Formats: sequence, C-alpha cells, structure tokens
Amino acid sequence: MQRYKLTIEYDGTPFLGWQKQNDGLTVQQSIMEAVYKFSQEHVTITAAGRTDTGVHARGQVIHFDLAKQCEPFQIMEAINAHLRPLPIALLSVEPVDDNFDARFSCKQRKYEYHIINRRAPLVLEKNRAWQIGAPLDVNAMIEGAQFFHGVHDFTTFRATMCQAKSPIRTLDSLEVSQIENTIIVRTAARAFLHSQVRSMVGSLVQVGLGKWQSQQIAKALLAKDRTQCGQLAPPYGLYFMEAMY
Amino acid sequence: MQRYKLTIEYDGTPFLGWQKQNDGLTVQQSIMEAVYKFSQEHVTITAAGRTDTGVHARGQVIHFDLAKQCEPFQIMEAINAHLRPLPIALLSVEPVDDNFDARFSCKQRKYEYHIINRRAPLVLEKNRAWQIGAPLDVNAMIEGAQFFHGVHDFTTFRATMCQAKSPIRTLDSLEVSQIENTIIVRTAARAFLHSQVRSMVGSLVQVGLGKWQSQQIAKALLAKDRTQCGQLAPPYGLYFMEAMY
Repeated sequence: MQRYKLTIEYDGTPFLGWQKQNDGLTVQQSIMEAVYKFSQEHVTITAAGRTDTGVHARGQVIHFDLAKQCEPFQIMEAINAHLRPLPIALLSVEPVDDNFDARFSCKQRKYEYHIINRRAPLVLEKNRAWQIGAPLDVNAMIEGAQFFHGVHDFTTFRATMCQAKSPIRTLDSLEVSQIENTIIVRTAARAFLHSQVRSMVGSLVQVGLGKWQSQQIAKALLAKDRTQCGQLAPPYGLYFMEAMY
Repeated sequence: MQRYKLTIEYDGTPFLGWQKQNDGLTVQQSIMEAVYKFSQEHVTITAAGRTDTGVHARGQVIHFDLAKQCEPFQIMEAINAHLRPLPIALLSVEPVDDNFDARFSCKQRKYEYHIINRRAPLVLEKNRAWQIGAPLDVNAMIEGAQFFHGVHDFTTFRATMCQAKSPIRTLDSLEVSQIENTIIVRTAARAFLHSQVRSMVGSLVQVGLGKWQSQQIAKALLAKDRTQCGQLAPPYGLYFMEAMY
C-alpha cells in the first residue's frame, strides 16, 4: 500500500458538501467512486477541511492509500477522467509517508470569501460569490476584522451543531480587501470551527452595511452566544484555498 | 421616445451569440423579450460588439429607444427581473442623446482572452477560459504579440465569412500577462474583424507551445492568407470588456 497526498479543486454547487452521506451526491463519495473505477479498490479518503454544501475548493488536500502500483501522474490523469463530468479535478498527486494525514498533519488552513457589491444579479460569478446590492463600507469592515485576530472563544461564531470539543481558536490572519466592486475576505488558522468563516463574514457584512458598529464584533465575541452572531454568509462565496503541512 | 445606453454582462455559454436568429437563443433576442415584458414595446437593440456563440461580455454596451417613461434605475431593475433566469444582467442604464449609437459612436473596444495553463480539466473556470495542458512559453508569446501592434492587413486573422469591407485594422494594444497559471491577453482597437481576437490568440498559443517561432506572426500577417492563421482559439475564453465613446 502506498499513501498519496492529493490537491483538489471543486465547484461545490451540485454537492451536499464534502462528507459521504446516505442520500445525495458528495465530493468524498464522488472521488471514492472514481478511485474505484480506476483501481477496483474501496479507499477511505480523509480531507484537510470538510466543506459544507455549496462551498468550493481551490486547494483542498486529501489522502488515501492505494495497493495498485502506478505513477502519480497516471493516477491523476485516470481519476480525472473517471470524475468527468463532475466538477472535481485533481491538481496534483504525490506519494507520501504513511504517517501523513491530510486532516491531523495540517498546520494551517486558508479560506477566501468573495463578495460582489453591486445592484445587478450575478451572471459570470453566479454561485461563485455573494452579491450584496446595498453599498458596503469596506473600511468599517477592515476595522471590524481586527477584533477577530488572535485567540478567542468563538462560540458566537460557530454552528450550534459544531462538534469541536473547544470553541477556542487562534486566528492567524483575517484580511478584507477590495478590487473595484469585489470584496475578498482572506483568513488563515490552524483550524476553524464549523461555519466559523461564514459566521465571521456575515457579521462583518453587518458592519459594512452600517447595521453594526465595528466594535460590535468585539462585543459579539465576548458574549459567547450564538444568537449574537450577525448572520451566516451563504456557502457559495466560500473557497477552501490551501492546507499547509 | 428616449434613447438609453446600457452596459451589460452575460455568460455566453447558453447563447448562439449576440445577433437575433431564427433558431435558438441569442442575447439580443433575450433582451428584446425582457424589454417587451416590461414596456410592451418591440425595440431594436444595437450593440457595440456582436459577439459569437459562447463568447462572454463584462461590459458590452447597447442602445435602444423607449416610449415608456421611467427612471433609469427602475428600467434596470425591471428588465433584470424579466431576464431571470437567463445569465444576462444590466449593470447600468443611462438616458443619452438621440445621436448616440452603441455601434457607430464607439471609439474603442476592449477584449480579454483567458487561458489556464494546467493539466487538470477546468472546474471553477469551466466555460470561462481555455485550458491548455502543455506548458506555454509566455515570454515567447509576449514577443510574438509585438508584431500585431499598429496598422496591418489582418486578412490572415479574420474569419472567411467576415463581411467588413476592409481587412485593415489598427491595433491600439495587445498585451500578454501571466498570474500563476492564468495567462490573460488584453487587446484594444477602434474596431476588430470577425474572429480577429480568437485568431490572434490561437496563433500566439502556437508560439507559446513552441510550434511557431515568434517571427511567424509577422510572416502570417504579411501572407494575407487565412490558411496561414495558427488556429482559432475557442470562444469560451473570450470576454468583451468595454466600449469607449
């Protein structure tokens, strides 16, 4: 058996998220089936980040073990062929040591959230960004984002169904930037709680809309109360960008 | 009657191009129908650039005359609502003088062509860029692009069915740039011939692949012979970006 580390991209739109389920199409299940068609092996696939329904990935990292002997490039080409026409692509495949674990060896995860601030509905970026019609004050959002930096109890900013033992997380970075009418929120941490990025972005949008003062972010953190979260940003603006090892 | 200048965006994928046809969905026909639903008026719509099947627009400019009196913002909102779920959106609507003509008043047109140079099939950029698996020498493409600048007879680089009287055009700019594995070709001219941008990009890709020396671009121009064109780049990588007046 050889363990492989794979970097993958997917359009989350047609999937019920990463995790295998009994009903409906998931990214994990789709890759398992493509691997089976290639190798006749039922592999167990572990991901760096278990993305929710509709969330995209540009650099998700996964691992699995394969008995079939084959060059990494051939594995990539074959599985990509079997994945068609599903919107999942393997970007790279590399053999790794048996103690590599896509989830537990990961030292940092990076996400991006895309907002398009315009009145017109999205066309070329449909299902790729959150369209917000009312004008956003990006400077206020940048100010609000500062409060998230560092170590906090993120109880307010995690899904009630989040199964992590501790709500304490350390945010390495969270930056808000703007190019024309596109606002991008980039964030990195060793680990995130369930719905944490979408909860933080949703609350920053409340600040951008002027419904919250930027200091409300600090108050919401201190409240440690899910009902104090501004709103949950929709999944289709979120991208799992990179996993660092 | 009031004339309006509108800036529009569309995903060209489901359309048989801009121009109204007897069979199949076009952008022009779709907008005419949405305007009719809003105003019960059969308007004639003129565009700055008549894009081909599958070609996108981020800043196409059109005009039409409307008898119905209404604020521009309301016109935009109403027509956008009637366009749903088609991937066309009005970005702006402004009243203009009767002598404004989206096609004939246009002083410069700008296009972008997107190439993604990677082995894996496109997922998030499917139908939005040309995926090329073999490595491209971008410096050679930049060198080749220089030969297109200025005034030339572009017979080699226009569709045989092109109906323009003269094959002479003046290219104001054509720049090749690269960010990671994305290569973008940006070009501007007062007017382009039919398939000119896709013909130039297809030939530059021949240079990038090492199948052509960069000087072959100059030779192909001098040949004034359609059969000397490198290849026609596919439509889904092309974007009509802007029309200047």
